[in-house]
Amino acid sequence: MAVTETANYTPLTEQTAVELAAQLDFFPKGAALSSREIGDGNLNYVFHITDETGKGLIIKQALPYAKVVGESWPLTLKRAKIEANALKKHGEYVPHLVPEVYATDEALAYTVMEDLSHLTVARAGLIAGETYPKLSDDIGEYLAQTLFHTSDFGLHPFDKKRLAAEFSNPELCKITEDLIFTDPFFNNETNDFEEALTADAEAIWNNKALQLEAAKLKQSFLTEAEALLHGDLHTGSIFASKDETKVIDPEFAFYGPIGFDVGLFLANLVFQSITRGEEGRDVITDHIRNTWDVFSSRFSELWEQENQSAFKDTTGYRETVLEKIFRDSVGFAGAELIRRTIGLAHVSDLDGIEDDEERIARKRQALRTGEAFILKRAELTSIDDVLSLIGALR
Amino acid sequence: MAVTETANYTPLTEQTAVELAAQLDFFPKGAALSSREIGDGNLNYVFHITDETGKGLIIKQALPYAKVVGESWPLTLKRAKIEANALKKHGEYVPHLVPEVYATDEALAYTVMEDLSHLTVARAGLIAGETYPKLSDDIGEYLAQTLFHTSDFGLHPFDKKRLAAEFSNPELCKITEDLIFTDPFFNNETNDFEEALTADAEAIWNNKALQLEAAKLKQSFLTEAEALLHGDLHTGSIFASKDETKVIDPEFAFYGPIGFDVGLFLANLVFQSITRGEEGRDVITDHIRNTWDVFSSRFSELWEQENQSAFKDTTGYRETVLEKIFRDSVGFAGAELIRRTIGLAHVSDLDGIEDDEERIARKRQALRTGEAFILKRAELTSIDDVLSLIGALR
Repeated sequence: MAVTETANYTPLTEQTAVELAAQLDFFPKGAALSSREIGDGNLNYVFHITDETGKGLIIKQALPYAKVVGESWPLTLKRAKIEANALKKHGEYVPHLVPEVYATDEALAYTVMEDLSHLTVARAGLIAGETYPKLSDDIGEYLAQTLFHTSDFGLHPFDKKRLAAEFSNPELCKITEDLIFTDPFFNNETNDFEEALTADAEAIWNNKALQLEAAKLKQSFLTEAEALLHGDLHTGSIFASKDETKVIDPEFAFYGPIGFDVGLFLANLVFQSITRGEEGRDVITDHIRNTWDVFSSRFSELWEQENQSAFKDTTGYRETVLEKIFRDSVGFAGAELIRRTIGLAHVSDLDGIEDDEERIARKRQALRTGEAFILKRAELTSIDDVLSLIGALR
Repeated sequence: MAVTETANYTPLTEQTAVELAAQLDFFPKGAALSSREIGDGNLNYVFHITDETGKGLIIKQALPYAKVVGESWPLTLKRAKIEANALKKHGEYVPHLVPEVYATDEALAYTVMEDLSHLTVARAGLIAGETYPKLSDDIGEYLAQTLFHTSDFGLHPFDKKRLAAEFSNPELCKITEDLIFTDPFFNNETNDFEEALTADAEAIWNNKALQLEAAKLKQSFLTEAEALLHGDLHTGSIFASKDETKVIDPEFAFYGPIGFDVGLFLANLVFQSITRGEEGRDVITDHIRNTWDVFSSRFSELWEQENQSAFKDTTGYRETVLEKIFRDSVGFAGAELIRRTIGLAHVSDLDGIEDDEERIARKRQALRTGEAFILKRAELTSIDDVLSLIGALR
């Protein structure tokens, strides 16, 4: 990782965070503010500032390093600017689905934004059995709006290319390139898996057909600048309640293949489909189907209403574009299923299963499903095909 | 087109060009220099400065407008910087195949470079019956070296993404997006064709299958940032002699699909294959075959020797990459064949045929060939397949 610029940068404290919040035109003058650091400290500070009435805001500050599983490396502070700009850009299209940004500071690498503490992280809620009835409607809408509007179908090519250069995000992309698309497919030291899965991991490293498809997915991630992605759209990047959904943390935002955002979210629903008992599973199956249905139908509506392309009405073009997105999504979902099981950063959906036998069985199922997604993505033509495949590998 | 920055910019004259040349450490002190403007004045001034011994250099200055077929529109001066930087970047890999850059000035939008006046423009030479025995060896090498080394196979992803942002070239790309990938496939007022070809042009506009494939090619051009392309590699951008080849004028340089450079060059050889009599045609057939053979074998060697990718040795990966480049090249060649026949900017290979019947027949052949390239590119698996197709449509 490149060494990052830290001139003029100082980490905030609970005290300086309060002082900063008091300067903003947000709280009543003279309000007694309190501050609590609620981040996990691995990548960012997250200060929750509230007044006596409970009114609050969030100050998120990037740290000049990343800590993952005990390792620490320098990591660019520019990601704070990328994240704030992505929230603002996506907020132009779905203001109800992202936190509002109140203020930013590039040198100090912080963003002041809407307090979402009345919501829970979707991953934790889903693991606890929540159903989040609006989740797939909202994320389908989020995906369609943000990805269509920042693509060449929704933007003048001058604006698209300006944004693509502005959102160049090499360091954060490299994390994805390594941890999702490379390391899990080789016997690399960053991999992290339970001993019981050794043979399964080795089978993946020896699967040459799978490796070839992983190479193609990585090349797509490296080269296909289709739209301004969130870049890390797993269920830990989503706050939710029964009534509301908010997508947070787009610090991995960059111009990439549309299917990457769609696929990451789908894969994280698949973890729930894999780990839930039969009775709780249907709601997840519905969410998977509905995510794709809402995304593809909203994307199609936007295409009809707003696409300025000369080829907008060319027979079969919209279908061709959606087929590519679908195929890519399934492949990227497969890579996410594998990396969260044997790669560096795991998910609590799987790791949280206490029974050893059950946990290993579900992890094997995740690997099988990921492998099938990657290898069979060209044959799967509908979201029901995908759901059948998930069921068949149970 | 966006209005361009012209502060601090003044066009050079033959006098100021001489003064500028005299300041460089190039000619002997006190040499009597003479200057001649040899550009066509549509996009750039090109001053050829020489001393009494015949030693010379070229000063190329971008003009803040473009004139094409009588129309004039503002055009960014930044293209001078893009061109100079592309010459220097490509020159790192093939110094013998591009002019040396001696000096640049961003505000005045000029580049001082190697005098190539001992060479002729390849298009003109080929039309006159020259064979240029080194042409396909050199261009195959140029394509492999420049495209491999600037791709994700040849560069660290940080360097690749930095270059991709640096070479963002929206205005020049838009010209290609419109004139190659859009207008010729619709009844657009920019199109320019002989009355006798009206029915042929209409057939293209009504060919929905062709339009769909053109849409896909355009999307590839818009989104696939594979390598730093020349961006305009027709035979008018190549200086040649029996012994030497130099690629000039990369002002359209940007990160795009590798097949675009390969395809543009191949298409311009195809114009020669179409317009030459039987006796002169074999040398062109050989050049077409050899361009692909040299490109693909050199690209493969560079892959073996220099590719740092974890997937370098993954069975079938190199072949997959080359198959995509091949398919793209054929498709892009097809678009070039069509646009040069019914679109805005023609080629003298076709337009220079004096006999009306012959000229129209050869133009129809170019359209047929272009159409087949685009529609059948997925079925063509070797350069010999392409040559057979060209022969079958004669």
